[in-house]
Amino acid sequence: MGPATKYLVIDKPFPLYRGERLPGLQLAWESWGKLNDKRDNAVLVMTGLSPGAHAASSAKDPEPGWWEEMIGPGKPIDTRRFFVICVNSLGSCKGSTGPASINPASGKPWRLKFPELAIEDIARGTRQVIEHLGIEKLHALIGPSMGGLTAMAWLKQYPQSTERLCLISTACSATPFAIAIRSLQREAIVTDRNFRDGAYTEDDWPEVGMRLARKLGMISYRSAGEWQQRFGRRRQDYFPATLFGMRFEIESYLETHARKFVGQFDPCCYLYLSRAMDNFDACDSDENLKALFDRSFTGHALVLGVASDILFPLNQQEELAKALEATGSEVSFQALPSVQGHDAFLVDFERFGPPIAEWLE
Amino acid sequence: MGPATKYLVIDKPFPLYRGERLPGLQLAWESWGKLNDKRDNAVLVMTGLSPGAHAASSAKDPEPGWWEEMIGPGKPIDTRRFFVICVNSLGSCKGSTGPASINPASGKPWRLKFPELAIEDIARGTRQVIEHLGIEKLHALIGPSMGGLTAMAWLKQYPQSTERLCLISTACSATPFAIAIRSLQREAIVTDRNFRDGAYTEDDWPEVGMRLARKLGMISYRSAGEWQQRFGRRRQDYFPATLFGMRFEIESYLETHARKFVGQFDPCCYLYLSRAMDNFDACDSDENLKALFDRSFTGHALVLGVASDILFPLNQQEELAKALEATGSEVSFQALPSVQGHDAFLVDFERFGPPIAEWLE
Repeated sequence: MGPATKYLVIDKPFPLYRGERLPGLQLAWESWGKLNDKRDNAVLVMTGLSPGAHAASSAKDPEPGWWEEMIGPGKPIDTRRFFVICVNSLGSCKGSTGPASINPASGKPWRLKFPELAIEDIARGTRQVIEHLGIEKLHALIGPSMGGLTAMAWLKQYPQSTERLCLISTACSATPFAIAIRSLQREAIVTDRNFRDGAYTEDDWPEVGMRLARKLGMISYRSAGEWQQRFGRRRQDYFPATLFGMRFEIESYLETHARKFVGQFDPCCYLYLSRAMDNFDACDSDENLKALFDRSFTGHALVLGVASDILFPLNQQEELAKALEATGSEVSFQALPSVQGHDAFLVDFERFGPPIAEWLE
Repeated sequence: MGPATKYLVIDKPFPLYRGERLPGLQLAWESWGKLNDKRDNAVLVMTGLSPGAHAASSAKDPEPGWWEEMIGPGKPIDTRRFFVICVNSLGSCKGSTGPASINPASGKPWRLKFPELAIEDIARGTRQVIEHLGIEKLHALIGPSMGGLTAMAWLKQYPQSTERLCLISTACSATPFAIAIRSLQREAIVTDRNFRDGAYTEDDWPEVGMRLARKLGMISYRSAGEWQQRFGRRRQDYFPATLFGMRFEIESYLETHARKFVGQFDPCCYLYLSRAMDNFDACDSDENLKALFDRSFTGHALVLGVASDILFPLNQQEELAKALEATGSEVSFQALPSVQGHDAFLVDFERFGPPIAEWLE
């Protein structure tokens, strides 16, 4: 959360998709550009699992955001034309209500007492901000990675509420391989001796589990080919050698990412969001994916994927594009040759920028 | 170890590749078929990281071995013609000397006091059995996975000592992706509260770390495509649900494998062998791979790989085949369309059997 973060507080019960309810909620959000008088230039950007609402810098907050190269004046998502909104996911820990927030009933953090969270709840949380702004229909909805699941959960619940749709490196549901990776990340966290069924403290943080989870995350987010190019078998001397580790540059790369992550993300929030991703199925209330899009979207869709992505493999984006095409919508599908795997949308702006700019034209 | 296991005990110091030495060693091995009078029908099978010497059943030990469908009378490696030998790797815990063995100086298991182990040492340990049997030249040397590294470490040290060479799902050195996977497996073990710098006991076993390591192993050994076919998003009810886990069939599959593994493999042995794989470089004492093969092998080589292998990707087997071809050797290279990833050689006998049988003709 930074100086540009705004908060929407809702002081009434918020029913959740799986049947439980929250007594109320807070949503952290940011925006760039100006909402026009017709309120029809809004571009909503959903986030991946870990980023917050700070997608880009602004006059109020010059700190670079997680999609800095993509959002701004003259950038692919041009804030001179569009009013861009990004909301921290419900269930996350960057200003919005989640397992790390205070449970008003106990005065303590929710942790594992937080009710079961679904991707549909994240979409509905985000929706509160859009309604608060008086926006009836989005100009565009953009969802990369988990944000793509949230975009589809949005369409399920708010059909025909966006003119354009962009799904990036995402899928209608997780593969067993992706479930395996995330299940193992969660196991590493809950088996950490400091996790103590969610009763961890600042001084006894489940750091070991969070480190393992993050490193495994990086293994699934990037690609073998990229690492071959970047690191090969080069040795490292940045960190001291450990028992059976920290000899190769790839090991210090993972270590750097793990150290950054450990203090920045709450373990319980991670667990809830991760499990929600496994459980999500875009088609569970429609006959199939085409039926979902048939009733929920009519406009220009862009679907982007990357051949080196092992977490959301390209055939999953092909499936989305085909289902969208089958509805008669205008669909642009591009398989980008980025080497950075699933994370390419966060780093390979040369490739991701142009098709997004063109689709928004 | 079973009723067919034989042991070779060497009661003199055994110098190791990285400079230290063992006071002596024991090697567990098995054989099938008969060594002929000319001692020229020996087929040596190197093993992957975890299997022992029991590669196939026999009259003495009817328990199926790890390559049961491949070795036996009338099978691809036909024991009516060949004398087949398999040795438990030095550093492992299935009868051969390793970190789980008793250090004669202390009367206690070596654990982390075991000297640094290299793949070259495994080859030299195996060599002792072959020399003990009076075999000067192998008819064939077969190395799948880590066994392929050991086969190359063998050629480095014992050039021109085999007529035929078969390298399966292996490489001249590990990719950074493979190092990342193994590094993380080791981190999971050494950070287990029960690991205690190697001072774990039967009652306080580093089970959590070993389970994580094994599950991560399975993720790297199989393939996303296979799991999509086998499991999809089917739910499981075999194991009770856990905190954020054990909902999907893929989770119970991993759990079953983890439970089997935990009691069967010593954590320190795992760490030593895993790190030896990262450190191995077939070419470190030759100018390049071609130079290694130029001086060490003249015969008929077979190189097999699988497109769905993410741990030893196909381009690594292509590299081996090209280097062998460049020496003028007869080389058969096949990229098999197995869906089972790196582990295909352990399960897809329909595809792996015929080329191996043909190469041995």
